[in-house]
Amino acid sequence: MGPGPSDVPDRVLGALARPTIGHLDPLFVGLMDDIKTLLQYAFQTTNSLTVPVSAPGSAGMEACFVNLLSPGDTVIVCRNGVFGGRMQENVERCGATAIMVEDEWGEPVSAAKVAAAFAAHPEATTLAFVHAETSTGVRSDTAALCALARDHGALSIVDTVTSLGGIELQVDAWGADAVYSGTQKCLSCVPGLSPVTFSPAAVARINSRTQKVQSWFLDMQLVMGYWGGESKRAYHHTAPINTLYALHESLLMLREEGLEASHARHHRNHLALVAGLEAMGLEMAVAASHRLPQLNLVRIPPGIDDAGVRQTLLTEFNLEIGAGLGALAGKTWRIGLMGHASTATNVTLCLSALGVALARQGLAVSTERALAAANAVLAS
Amino acid sequence: MGPGPSDVPDRVLGALARPTIGHLDPLFVGLMDDIKTLLQYAFQTTNSLTVPVSAPGSAGMEACFVNLLSPGDTVIVCRNGVFGGRMQENVERCGATAIMVEDEWGEPVSAAKVAAAFAAHPEATTLAFVHAETSTGVRSDTAALCALARDHGALSIVDTVTSLGGIELQVDAWGADAVYSGTQKCLSCVPGLSPVTFSPAAVARINSRTQKVQSWFLDMQLVMGYWGGESKRAYHHTAPINTLYALHESLLMLREEGLEASHARHHRNHLALVAGLEAMGLEMAVAASHRLPQLNLVRIPPGIDDAGVRQTLLTEFNLEIGAGLGALAGKTWRIGLMGHASTATNVTLCLSALGVALARQGLAVSTERALAAANAVLAS
Repeated sequence: MGPGPSDVPDRVLGALARPTIGHLDPLFVGLMDDIKTLLQYAFQTTNSLTVPVSAPGSAGMEACFVNLLSPGDTVIVCRNGVFGGRMQENVERCGATAIMVEDEWGEPVSAAKVAAAFAAHPEATTLAFVHAETSTGVRSDTAALCALARDHGALSIVDTVTSLGGIELQVDAWGADAVYSGTQKCLSCVPGLSPVTFSPAAVARINSRTQKVQSWFLDMQLVMGYWGGESKRAYHHTAPINTLYALHESLLMLREEGLEASHARHHRNHLALVAGLEAMGLEMAVAASHRLPQLNLVRIPPGIDDAGVRQTLLTEFNLEIGAGLGALAGKTWRIGLMGHASTATNVTLCLSALGVALARQGLAVSTERALAAANAVLAS
Repeated sequence: MGPGPSDVPDRVLGALARPTIGHLDPLFVGLMDDIKTLLQYAFQTTNSLTVPVSAPGSAGMEACFVNLLSPGDTVIVCRNGVFGGRMQENVERCGATAIMVEDEWGEPVSAAKVAAAFAAHPEATTLAFVHAETSTGVRSDTAALCALARDHGALSIVDTVTSLGGIELQVDAWGADAVYSGTQKCLSCVPGLSPVTFSPAAVARINSRTQKVQSWFLDMQLVMGYWGGESKRAYHHTAPINTLYALHESLLMLREEGLEASHARHHRNHLALVAGLEAMGLEMAVAASHRLPQLNLVRIPPGIDDAGVRQTLLTEFNLEIGAGLGALAGKTWRIGLMGHASTATNVTLCLSALGVALARQGLAVSTERALAAANAVLAS
């Protein structure tokens, strides 16, 4: 129950361990087509360039930046947590200039500040921000931010690593242009792949580049040739065959449950966890309007030893929760309820375990009251 | 029995499917240390920067180039197959100049030509070449080429994707500076990781860079911080946990067998296959002195339909062999005997199946004689 990787269901691990076949085998090529279709459903898009990058989410982020940016570009980058800073690194390593829009860690991206940044930098070609900040548990208004980019003739790059499958994400309806995610959060697949999707406008920008993409491995024109379209597939790299089996299975599971049902489940378990934590006397660190149901930031009560509590959970309950990051380090815990791990059982386990760990440090909390509050939500 | 991915043993698939734990879990951190030690054994090196890049071999190649090169550098690149061309792409995308040393596909890299290139380009900082060319089945003299680089004050970048575990590879004794490999060839692990190792001289060059590495994901200074040394591990990206379980298992298997025994097994099965193919009247496409035992290039006899034979093998014998590439396309097959798949059984299966497929196209070959020749080698 940390910030990911989330627990991987047996069905996905079983798929992972199927015999490795050749990456040019006709059966595997069929699987690649299925994965594209299933990813389009997960992203709610008809973008034909919708594929998993053969590396973790950080590489998916880099794929978006190196393909869309050219040296000299101006990019508005929103930072309200760890990953905005990483975006800045990516922009600068592309030889582009990052105009930073800063918000407090724990707050969503301010659309007003972004509008002001566009007004001050009409030359900006791209807006980059994080939909669901894994470091803070905050959701930003992706539809509004993408609309701002579009209104200023810019393309949007959106980090959906933690949102995909857990909360609403409408790539087409919201007009997001380059979107990357990870497999190890709400998809409950193993880490190692980064689903990405590029809008027609993003593809047009890629196809009109005058300078080659600085990364050969992440060059989407080459990746497009490999994942196929009209023409014959061209060998680019050896796909991580088994991890793709696992992604296929986890995407099938998401489609079987249905996106809306998955979102509703994440929301319900989140409300139950919050009710339980609050009944215990703990406080959430993020305003209710911006909370991610899949990643819950809880304030560490005064006098409680952060690492000690996490150690008790890990060694006595086999339960991992995440530490706070940056300005929130030592002040918050990050409790994940992601994908397959977003269950009533995990809500109950976490509340019970926290009750014991806090009592160990002399903070008397009523686990009974917490469980009753959580169960009331789960039963509703 | 193609050019890779090779068959993955059940023991490795079983490790792959173990429950996913957190990438910061103390147990996982211990596994990372074990993997480093096992990789040092496989590479025959004491280099402390010896880690698996969290992406396929192509990304390992890119990691070597983007970390060692800076814009304006001159690099001597040897091309005697597909992967030399890919190296050229990498050099140019780093803003460096590639001086190409060309050899025929099917021939090893000529040390004399490399010496001439260094004489003509004393400003060259780096020499890049392929130890075992997957596209042609040719081995080049890595010790001699690394010595040439050293003699000219240059660092060497060596592609060992297909050699690691299958033939002798002495990173320290040969003085190779930046070496990358893949997991899906002679290690018989699933694809998706690229073991790399950097010599102290390579690390010194990385640490003295004045310009950031253009790839954030592949920046070895950041990767070093994650894979640890003296200091605390710093989060860089989410490691592909399960694939690392599999790599750990396959490296354990290699150490259990022993490098020399593994090389001897690859060599014996190769000799048996060649004896069988020649007894069948087929010809090898590479001179005996340069042949890779793990990847056997066979000339397609006149009048035989390349794709038809491979189709028969695949559909009737569940056996994949590789097509020729580039100038060798349609003229050769590439038969892999890699890692776990380098067995007497596979030699026999391949000879028998080829006998049927060739007979189907009207070429009468004596499978009986081929099997006798192969078995004579296997029994010796």
